Amino acid sequence: MAQTGTDVRLVGFATLAAFAMALSWIEQHVQVLGPESIPAASATHRILAVPVRSRVDQPDVDRAARDGYAVQASETEAADSYTPLLLHLTDGNTAWRPSNANIVAAGMPMSPGTSAVLPFEATARNEGMLAVMAPVAPGSGVRLQGADTRAGQDHLATGRRLRPEDPAFLTALGVTAVDVVRQPKVAVLSIGPKSGGVDLLGPMLLPRIVRDGGLGLAVPWLATIAYAASRADLVIAAGRSGSGADDDAAPTLLAAGGTLALHGIALQPGESTGLGLLKATPVVLLPGEPLACLAAYEMLAARVVRRLSGLREPAPAPMVQLERKIVSTIGMVELVFVCLHDGRATPLAADGLAVMQAEGYVVVPETSEGFAAGSLVPFHSIDAGGWTLQS
Amino acid sequence: MAQTGTDVRLVGFATLAAFAMALSWIEQHVQVLGPESIPAASATHRILAVPVRSRVDQPDVDRAARDGYAVQASETEAADSYTPLLLHLTDGNTAWRPSNANIVAAGMPMSPGTSAVLPFEATARNEGMLAVMAPVAPGSGVRLQGADTRAGQDHLATGRRLRPEDPAFLTALGVTAVDVVRQPKVAVLSIGPKSGGVDLLGPMLLPRIVRDGGLGLAVPWLATIAYAASRADLVIAAGRSGSGADDDAAPTLLAAGGTLALHGIALQPGESTGLGLLKATPVVLLPGEPLACLAAYEMLAARVVRRLSGLREPAPAPMVQLERKIVSTIGMVELVFVCLHDGRATPLAADGLAVMQAEGYVVVPETSEGFAAGSLVPFHSIDAGGWTLQS
Repeated sequence: MAQTGTDVRLVGFATLAAFAMALSWIEQHVQVLGPESIPAASATHRILAVPVRSRVDQPDVDRAARDGYAVQASETEAADSYTPLLLHLTDGNTAWRPSNANIVAAGMPMSPGTSAVLPFEATARNEGMLAVMAPVAPGSGVRLQGADTRAGQDHLATGRRLRPEDPAFLTALGVTAVDVVRQPKVAVLSIGPKSGGVDLLGPMLLPRIVRDGGLGLAVPWLATIAYAASRADLVIAAGRSGSGADDDAAPTLLAAGGTLALHGIALQPGESTGLGLLKATPVVLLPGEPLACLAAYEMLAARVVRRLSGLREPAPAPMVQLERKIVSTIGMVELVFVCLHDGRATPLAADGLAVMQAEGYVVVPETSEGFAAGSLVPFHSIDAGGWTLQS
Repeated sequence: MAQTGTDVRLVGFATLAAFAMALSWIEQHVQVLGPESIPAASATHRILAVPVRSRVDQPDVDRAARDGYAVQASETEAADSYTPLLLHLTDGNTAWRPSNANIVAAGMPMSPGTSAVLPFEATARNEGMLAVMAPVAPGSGVRLQGADTRAGQDHLATGRRLRPEDPAFLTALGVTAVDVVRQPKVAVLSIGPKSGGVDLLGPMLLPRIVRDGGLGLAVPWLATIAYAASRADLVIAAGRSGSGADDDAAPTLLAAGGTLALHGIALQPGESTGLGLLKATPVVLLPGEPLACLAAYEMLAARVVRRLSGLREPAPAPMVQLERKIVSTIGMVELVFVCLHDGRATPLAADGLAVMQAEGYVVVPETSEGFAAGSLVPFHSIDAGGWTLQS
């Protein structure tokens, strides 16, 4: 492990901290933020701090589950195609009486006295009479009161991010307010390479911070690291984390009174990543080289954001077949960026433009020397999907 | 197959079209829209109509790939730790001469005459002199001109959706304008069930249309189907597609002069889905029951949107283990909605609220009776990610 507070400029990283040590530092120093109650109607993309509990039975009464005719199931017991049961068709607006059937649409309340819905295909209709050719079981074609959920029942779990359709569905549960985790404010100081004056790292990091449940704030310059830390829940400084003469991210953090717990991590690309604190605010130093920056964000900084935001772990990764072998160094966690063709993953050269061509990456653990061609390996997408610079 | 133009109200679907027939109708009747040229700076989330070709070499000159000292590799051939090579350190601002080394930061141009970059760790430095303990190969620590891409080389493929960081990277390729597919305008007539006056289907469909590369337009009422078709590239009518008395989606399409190629498809849930045309505009009728609506959108309507938008197929689905068995009917393509616990998929009851609890679905092909508990099956996420109602 790099010694705490060591200036690595013009020296380099004599030793690297094990990747597991970085994960364990994150677990020890980063906790989920507190809850806040907000209207359900404006809660899209927010992350639940406690489970959502239904306030009503759903369905509220027995309702038809399909289009057809509502009948009393017990009356149909003896029906067959030789001796069809004949029922009187009503409009359902009058009280049900024996030998009655009424037309219903899916979702409509069942008339009291009826207990099943026959689909149109199972009947024949003739001048106000309905012929039923076969028995129907009670409850067939019916959604019983409370079948989906009962008042007081937990319905969505802690850590669930609300989807765009959820607010409308929450009204069906009688839920008007939800307790969500306060959104972590993540200050991004992008001081990495620019291309023709255009910042490359901010547009790469900010949508992914939003994806991980954070609120990304672009802050212009590293000199403001103390200011950024005072108004944010996490500071990410991207660029100048390494050991060159102008790599002043770590010294600037230390000069501001911060501590650097780890600097130099056995992650390839991304070894110049640093983790520290400024007062109680976590600070992550990411490399400026775009591929290393993305690798270190996805493997370390993203976990910090997700721990703060309370977002659950992502769904399992799909397995893909490697088109070519991957060779890796024992002792380093290595990310190999790949693109996909017909579901097979082709490793890319580890240069800056691989960020554009890559669709995802494969992780080689520190205990592994790599994977043979044809191996099945987990594929981690780097597609930020629809997440944009701000939530 | 349902007969073209048959009114299914109060009759139901006597026969269902095979799912493969619906896919083949889509392939025959829906083609990618034409291209348009737009500024690269505003092309985030747009889909490439032709490959992006680099206009420059990248790197433009030989550049350092790491922080360290630029040296002429051939001079280091005899260096070892007993007889280190001693070099004169310069600032790199004067022309390189034999026995010189100069400090470089990653990304800086190599001084003419130098051919490798030694990391700080591989050297010792003393009063303007640098001691080199081991030979270095030419090109080590250097990104050669054109190594990433050459001017004129294809760089991103047709069908690729531009990510938020791409516009900045495109400037590095000298690309200022890109040819993208015109965004399909998708009119959504949500006439399905409402909960307390709140539309359930629009908020569910619109973000997914955006995810699939479309531009969702919420249109208020089915009466405007002809109007919607005249200004959109696709019309989706959600609700009233079935065989109830008020299920007027299909009759309204026919009355407007449209044709209904398929109505009633062997898809469960979602059998009342319809596919047709109004003049040249494709029209998809989706069921109003939310779970059936989502199933039919994901399995059929999403493919129509993606064919119009030119979006490539999504990445392969991850495999998950089934917590319980799934039983399905031969002849129907069945979607079973599931939630995940510890990477295992638990099937949910097929009711309306499963839309909220579900994280994704499993598809049982029409030739299968289902899957045993413990089977590994592909998991399709229904998380619309960061896609919102509008792009």
